[in-house]
Amino acid sequence: MTFSGPELAYLGTQRLGRLATVQSDGSPQVSPVGFSYNQELDTIDIGGFNMSRSQKFRNVVRDGRVAFVVDDVVSTEPWRVRCLEIRGVAEAVPDEGNPEPGHDRSIIRIRPQRIISFGIDQTDQEPHLMTPHNRNVA
Amino acid sequence: MTFSGPELAYLGTQRLGRLATVQSDGSPQVSPVGFSYNQELDTIDIGGFNMSRSQKFRNVVRDGRVAFVVDDVVSTEPWRVRCLEIRGVAEAVPDEGNPEPGHDRSIIRIRPQRIISFGIDQTDQEPHLMTPHNRNVA
Repeated sequence: MTFSGPELAYLGTQRLGRLATVQSDGSPQVSPVGFSYNQELDTIDIGGFNMSRSQKFRNVVRDGRVAFVVDDVVSTEPWRVRCLEIRGVAEAVPDEGNPEPGHDRSIIRIRPQRIISFGIDQTDQEPHLMTPHNRNVA
Repeated sequence: MTFSGPELAYLGTQRLGRLATVQSDGSPQVSPVGFSYNQELDTIDIGGFNMSRSQKFRNVVRDGRVAFVVDDVVSTEPWRVRCLEIRGVAEAVPDEGNPEPGHDRSIIRIRPQRIISFGIDQTDQEPHLMTPHNRNVA
C-alpha cells in the first residue's frame, strides 16, 4: 500500500487538490483539480470539464513529472494545517472518443513515487512539534 | 495595477494558496502557503514557520520561476470553482538575522508575469459558460 489508512481517509474528505505540472519552457504550472484515489491501480486519478484540451493535460503528455497536494486548515488558533503532497510520474490517458467539454473522460493518472505527509497521522501533536512524514513509495 | 479590484478582494478572502516551484532535477514541487498582497511593491509575499530552511525557499534561490494558485469551491450544485493562478519570477528574500523556526521572517516574493483568473469577475455567469481571463502583466 502506498498510502496509510489515515492518509486515504484524509484524501476522501477533500474535494480539491492542486496539481503542478511542467510547461514546455521548464517553468511550473499549478491548477485546482478534482481527484479520486484509484484503489485497483493505487493511483490518483484526475478528471475535469475539458481535460484533454487543458494545458495541464498537454504538459503531462510532454513531461509526466508532477506534484500534487491536498491540504486544509484544521484550526487557526493555533494555526494548524494538514497536507499530503504526492510527487510522481503521471500518464495522460485520453478519452478514446472525441469528447465535447463536459463529457471528456480523459484523465491524468499519477503513480506516486514520494509522499510528504504532514499533520495527518499526528492530530494530537502540538503544531510546532509536528514533523513531516516523508518517504519514497515507488 | 497588476490585479483587478475583484481579484484583490478575492485574494483577501483566502487563507492559503499553493506554490509550485522547480526542483534541482526540473520536476515540480507544490506546497500550501500563507500569503499576502504587498500593495507597495505589487507582489505576492509568502512567509512560513521555517521558511529559509524549506525546500521551496531553496528551490527559489536556484530557479525563481514559480506558479501560485488561490482557489475555492463556491458551490457544488452546480459545481463552481473560482481560481486565480499567478505565474512569475520569485525572489528568495532572507531574514538577515539567524532566525529560529517560528521567528523566520524570510519570504518568497513573487513578481507576477501572467495571470489566469477564472470565475472571479463573473459571479453570475453559468458555470459552463465561464471563460478564463488570461493576461500578461509584466
